[in-house]
This record gives sequence, C-alpha cells and structure tokens, in this order.
Amino acid sequence: MSVLASENYPLDFAEADRGAVETELARFVDRRGRDLDQLGVAVFTRLLREFLAGGKRVRPLLCCHGWRAAGGSGALSRQVAMVAASLELFHAFALVHDDIMDASTTRRGRPTVHRAFAVQHAGHRHAEQVGVNGALLLGDLALGWSYDLLHDAAPPGALWRLVETMRTETLAGQYLDLTTGGGVEQALRVCRYKTAAYTVQRPLQAGALLAGADQATVAACGEFGLPLGEAFQLRDDLLGVFGCPQRTGKPVLDDLREGKNTVLLALARHHANAEQAALLDAVVGDPTLDEETAAWIRQVLEDTGARSAVEDMISHRCRAAETVLERSTLPLAGIAVLRGLIAKAAYRDH
Amino acid sequence: MSVLASENYPLDFAEADRGAVETELARFVDRRGRDLDQLGVAVFTRLLREFLAGGKRVRPLLCCHGWRAAGGSGALSRQVAMVAASLELFHAFALVHDDIMDASTTRRGRPTVHRAFAVQHAGHRHAEQVGVNGALLLGDLALGWSYDLLHDAAPPGALWRLVETMRTETLAGQYLDLTTGGGVEQALRVCRYKTAAYTVQRPLQAGALLAGADQATVAACGEFGLPLGEAFQLRDDLLGVFGCPQRTGKPVLDDLREGKNTVLLALARHHANAEQAALLDAVVGDPTLDEETAAWIRQVLEDTGARSAVEDMISHRCRAAETVLERSTLPLAGIAVLRGLIAKAAYRDH
Repeated sequence: MSVLASENYPLDFAEADRGAVETELARFVDRRGRDLDQLGVAVFTRLLREFLAGGKRVRPLLCCHGWRAAGGSGALSRQVAMVAASLELFHAFALVHDDIMDASTTRRGRPTVHRAFAVQHAGHRHAEQVGVNGALLLGDLALGWSYDLLHDAAPPGALWRLVETMRTETLAGQYLDLTTGGGVEQALRVCRYKTAAYTVQRPLQAGALLAGADQATVAACGEFGLPLGEAFQLRDDLLGVFGCPQRTGKPVLDDLREGKNTVLLALARHHANAEQAALLDAVVGDPTLDEETAAWIRQVLEDTGARSAVEDMISHRCRAAETVLERSTLPLAGIAVLRGLIAKAAYRDH
Repeated sequence: MSVLASENYPLDFAEADRGAVETELARFVDRRGRDLDQLGVAVFTRLLREFLAGGKRVRPLLCCHGWRAAGGSGALSRQVAMVAASLELFHAFALVHDDIMDASTTRRGRPTVHRAFAVQHAGHRHAEQVGVNGALLLGDLALGWSYDLLHDAAPPGALWRLVETMRTETLAGQYLDLTTGGGVEQALRVCRYKTAAYTVQRPLQAGALLAGADQATVAACGEFGLPLGEAFQLRDDLLGVFGCPQRTGKPVLDDLREGKNTVLLALARHHANAEQAALLDAVVGDPTLDEETAAWIRQVLEDTGARSAVEDMISHRCRAAETVLERSTLPLAGIAVLRGLIAKAAYRDH
C-alpha cells in the first residue's frame, strides 16, 4: 500500500486514529487508482497521491474528535476512518480548484497541481492551459471520490444530509469569496461558509453522528464548531501575513499578492487613514509585491489595530466555544476532548 | 415546480418516460436549490436550471431504454427516473467544465455558463475570470448533485460500481483529449472513453441493472452500446462541421475553430496531400476562422475521403451493434427496443 502520511500535523492526532485514517485513504486511492492506470491516466493518481501526502488532515482529525466527544471509544472503527478520509479527499478537491481560481503557484511548499501538470506537459504548445485543465479534472476526480468513499462508508441518513449541506456551504462560500466586496461583514460570511463550516463544524458533527449521537449532542458540536472554525480561519489569515513560511508551508506573500479578501485586511481598510488606505489600494493584490512592501503592509495592519482586532475576535470566539461546552449536556470526557481543540485550532503556528 | 423540459429531443422518448424524468430532475433541483437560495447564491440555481432546460436528455433516454430492453414495463419507476435524472446532472457538469477547458462561448444556442456568469458580473474588474470561476463552481455543484441523486435513488451495489466506472472513463477521456496527439487511433480512444461509454453504453447498462437484469443481459447492453456510442460521436463530429446550426444549436464553426481532435479531422490529416495538409495546419484551431475558410476545409474533408470514411465507420458500427442483438438472448421485445435506437443515434440530424 502506498504511503501518504505526512509529518505535517498541526493539531494533536492520536497516533492510532491517524494511522487508521491514512490506511483507509491509501487503500481507497490504491484501489481506484488501478482503474485510472488501466485507462492510461496514471498521472492523476500520482499527482493526487503527492498532493494528499502534504495534507494536514485537519478535517479527519476533527471528525475523529467528534466521534470521541460523542462517546466513541477504543480503536477507531473502519467506518469513522473512511468518512474521515472522504473529508480529506473533499478538501483536496476544494484546494485544487481553489488554486486554479486564485492562479496560485505553490501550495504546501510545492508547485500547485495545475503547475505540476503544466510541467508534465512542458513541451505542449499550450502547456499552461493543459496544466489548468488537468488540475480541473483532477479536482473533479477527487470530488467524485470523496462522495464514493462517504457513500461506501455510511448508509443514507443524517450523515449524508450533513455532508451535502457542508458541500453546498463550501461552494457558496467560494462563490461569495469571488464576487462580494471587501467589507468586514462580507469577509466574515465567506469565512463562515468557506472554512468554519467545512473545516471544523461539519467534520465534528459528522464524527458525532457516526458515534450515534442524539440531536442535542450533534447540535452542541455544531454550536461549538462554528466559532472555533471561525477562529481557525482568522488565525489562518494572521499566519498568511505574519506567519513563518517554513512552518506554514505557504509563501508569506501569497495572501497579499492575491489580495485575498480576509477579515484582517477588511478591518485594516475600514480603519485606515487616507495615506494607509492609498497604500493598501496600491499594493494589495499586486502579484509582484515584494518583501519590503509586505513589511509596510504589516505595519499598516498593526497601526490600524487590525491585527489586534483579529486577535480579539479569535479570543472572543474561543470564549463562545467554551461557553457552549459549559452549558452542554455532553459527557465530561467528551467535553474534555472538545476543550482540548480550542487552543490547538485557534493558537497554532502553522 | 419549475419547468426544465426542453423541446429539443433528438431521439424518440416515450412521452410518459420523459415526463417522469423531468419531474424528478425538477424536484431535485427545486429542493436543493432552496439551500442555495438560503446561502445567498440563488444565481447558481437559476443558471443551472437554464442550462438544464436546453439539454437533449440523451443519457436519461438511454437509461430508460436499457430498463425497458431488460424487461422493465409499464410506468417508469421513480427509481429509474431519478437515476436517469442523475445522469443528466452528470452531463451538465461535464459540459460546463468542458466549455471552460475549450473556452467555448456558446452551447445549446446560448452563451456558455462561464459567459453567463461573466455577464452577471459585467461591472467586475476581472469579469471574465469571475465568470470562469463561477462556472467551475457550478460544474462542481452539478457533479455533486449527480452523486447525491444517484445515491438517493439506488442502494450500494452493481449500479454504483457501474456509474463509478463511467465517471472515471469520462474524466480519463477528457484528459486524453487534452493531451494526446492528433492520430486516428488516439481520436478513437478519446471517442470511446469520453463519449461512447458515458453517453450510450453505461446509461443503457444502468437502466438494465435497474430492471434487475442478469449479467449476460448487462454485458449484451454493453457490447451493443459501445459501437453505438462511437457511431453517435462520429455522427456528432460530422454534424459539427457539416450540420445545420439551426438544428444542432451549435455554431458550425466551433469544432473547427477549437481545432477539436475528431476522428474526422485525424483521417483528413492522415490522407491529405502536402497542400491539403498545409491548409489544415494553417487554419484548423484558428479562433477567427470564417465561413469561407470552413468551406475550404469541408472540401478537403470530402476530397481526402475523410467524410465518407467516417460514414463508413458509422455504418460498420451500426452493423456491429446489430450483430450483438442477433446473437443476444434478450427477449424479443427488448431487442426491438434496442434496435430502434440504432438509426436514431447514428443517423440523426441534430
């Protein structure tokens, strides 16, 4: 069996749970990859494997934690591991298509999939376009596989409905991200749909459902997961500008070069004086932006209070998540599992 | 319930079967569309509905015919209608992404989805890119929905495996189309995976499985469907150059402007003399190609014998399909259903 496992886990992941998820992911990719080999497109499997190897497994981890929070104990069942692995495939799809939309060149410290395909076809007259189209298809494949693996793992019911909702939220969030203006409210809405729901809230709830949780428990996981997911994304926004690229695996200029519409930048724009606003307008979104300019922007993010406002938003959301736990009727062991996630999701360095 | 039905059915479709499929398709899009409305992205549902309204329902029709060929009788069951509708959603996904990859501007006599999104965001600084990204997401949505509808309709088993194979073949065919050279063999391989399997062969087999067909019947539908599907695509290639745009809903210059790697063009290149080869090299794939140039190319397709060779290939494949029927152990009524498809798929004018 191929090895996909990455050393790059930002959140604690019980060794055995992690292994079980990796096993299911590799097993599935190996099995379905054989079909691709037979059809003469082994390159898909190779590039997908390479891409998956760099993943942080945040969503599988949250799914496992949801399962344990709702009373799952002992070794992870194959079913939970399969659903967790299907979430990682969905994430792979979302990132591959996201990188196309953003025309990003690196991801996880390596060339993005559309760049890798372009290199693969370097001799082609339209290598760039072939690269984008290949990545589009690879994303489609990963999306389809995430459905297949989920549906192989679990019978129709509440879990399917939950994941359907998650997928719709993700696509809606992506679209809002493309099309809405740069206000703080808009950026928060994108953060909620595009990340909070599908990174934290829904995976946690999926795990809880797999443990046979009642409605109140699933709802509590949802109320806990949403603010924590927002905190996770807000931290991501800070790491995208102030983080250490060696730790995050992501060039620290990318978010600024893309002009990514983060809550952080929206706040800075909102509080900027004329001079600061002019600087942000002039350079954010410039694909040639350099480290010196980035340093100026960081200064504006400090001076406008945007950075500390985002830190406040993160701690506010952590408190909200904590409050949900205090009021919940979850078993104490389950509360401990979820409480352990707060600092790890909101105060990580990669 | 919204009306999606189109008047544009090239193959006979029993009125009642057609109605049942339209009902399931509209019901599903209405239900899931409400989620999109709530998330503030009603534009997706609107554009998807408009796109679906123009569809020919070839795959649903084949699915219904497979069901009847394998002994299904009386009113179409809801299950068959749902699976048939899921195939139309898969087709919508494939076309929307295909149009992005080919940078096509029209489809079904209307702007392609990425153009429609671009018009929607005409005031945006990067309206073209937003259009492409919106269409990418809408395609993702349609792909996901096709899985949901299939999995809602049928329990795990042979049908799921069949459709999984179909999806993989389609993506592999698309990729081979992007990347392989212009030889006749390559073009035929693309034709087989990209169209024959997912347009004719697999939908027929899916219908047969839903009728509870035994393995021999499903295999016979497959052996019958593959040459017929190839004939269907070869006819499509001819219609793309020699067809009447008012009938096909597709500008007659598009295939030539795209430089679509059809068997027809591959044969022409193979048999061209130096002068003809130079003409083809110079103008096929030129996005500004005009009707006068197209007329020259049509002449080359005639003079090299490519057009008549493709006609021969079509009739050869029709005979092969007929032979499968003669040797099959299908009930006579089933053979009659399939035989009726041959001329309609291979000798249509749109």
